[in-house]
Amino acid sequence: MSVIIVSGGMDSVTLLHDVVRNAVGPVLALSFGYGQRHVRELECAATHAQLLGCEHRVIDLRALASAFADSVLTDPARAMPRISETLGDPQPPTYVPNRNMLFLAIAVATAESAGRDAVHFGAQKHDLYGYWDTTGEFVGRLNAVYALNRKTPVRIVAPFLHLSKADVLRRGLQLGVDYSQTWSCYAGGERACGVCPTCAERLAAFREVGLDDPIVYERHQIKVSA
Amino acid sequence: MSVIIVSGGMDSVTLLHDVVRNAVGPVLALSFGYGQRHVRELECAATHAQLLGCEHRVIDLRALASAFADSVLTDPARAMPRISETLGDPQPPTYVPNRNMLFLAIAVATAESAGRDAVHFGAQKHDLYGYWDTTGEFVGRLNAVYALNRKTPVRIVAPFLHLSKADVLRRGLQLGVDYSQTWSCYAGGERACGVCPTCAERLAAFREVGLDDPIVYERHQIKVSA
Repeated sequence: MSVIIVSGGMDSVTLLHDVVRNAVGPVLALSFGYGQRHVRELECAATHAQLLGCEHRVIDLRALASAFADSVLTDPARAMPRISETLGDPQPPTYVPNRNMLFLAIAVATAESAGRDAVHFGAQKHDLYGYWDTTGEFVGRLNAVYALNRKTPVRIVAPFLHLSKADVLRRGLQLGVDYSQTWSCYAGGERACGVCPTCAERLAAFREVGLDDPIVYERHQIKVSA
Repeated sequence: MSVIIVSGGMDSVTLLHDVVRNAVGPVLALSFGYGQRHVRELECAATHAQLLGCEHRVIDLRALASAFADSVLTDPARAMPRISETLGDPQPPTYVPNRNMLFLAIAVATAESAGRDAVHFGAQKHDLYGYWDTTGEFVGRLNAVYALNRKTPVRIVAPFLHLSKADVLRRGLQLGVDYSQTWSCYAGGERACGVCPTCAERLAAFREVGLDDPIVYERHQIKVSA
């Protein structure tokens, strides 16, 4: 039995399909509203949870606005970088302070209270840019902390850690995931911007796989310098 | 510059006085309302923050009720154990699932967003009973996770880890802490119950130091079997 964090983006939605298909018990999906510009991602999370018949809770963390303040994802006054501006930056401005640790902590608490022993986390390899809190080292060290729990240890399971975005996409296509119902763009517009880091990464993945991305973009950044 | 988690109990209030006295910059105190029976502890946290002139934020986490559900601290329908019932239990029913990890994660996010590099945490030795998430091993492994942050690493500082409750009390008395303005009892009554695990631990500490506890109890459990 598992808890899974689902943002509504490609990675976590693919993982949700994967986990539900292989689950031996009920799957509980958790999503978080934390003042992100792209809050519409949560509608995509709800769509897939409903499609797969699993329980879905959206947790309102807007009380933590000051904790998450230092990020372009939560501060619309800051300019969204293009991916070319984030390449080589060890901590791009799209990083949200300690967000993944916090989401995982809530998911682990929820798992403990619900008698579940695993939390699934859709972190992937991030070929083009990355964050310290989506790496294998992060998950490994965090599991070393949680292993200390004396009665109800919960394991963080992140099976996509070594998959590229294109590999995740291939996996999802095999699972029949409808990517028109996923949302990646950080910018918070009505349409995906096509130029922010996650749009660029998503477009590059579809291009690598040889497919058109089914969502509509404001404009495409056709060339991604890697 | 530091962020500190203050519950309003003896340990964290003593640490607050200690940190403010030794701080080289402003101290930000964080407290959490998470559906605890003993929510009145937060008034004590506010009293000391105000006395010491430091900023104090109380963060409302009642949206996480289902995450914290499996505990006698958050479920008034469950019977509060006496300390004698918790001795030898590796995870007493007063444990709140992953609460400390979550509080620390919020404090670290807040520190990162505010440009601060340390979070102070008042965990002490727990002579009589204990939790996995108040130990030196927990803090050490957690710091190994946070050390991976590539730009804004925050350190968890827990200077009372090897102090007994009586040692914390001695330290606080030197600092002039008014313990009549601290709240420990888990039970959630108007007066401290005197028999829950934390009342028993508190009373034992005062007895060891040779002083009367200045708060009023419903009844004293004079003898603590260790």
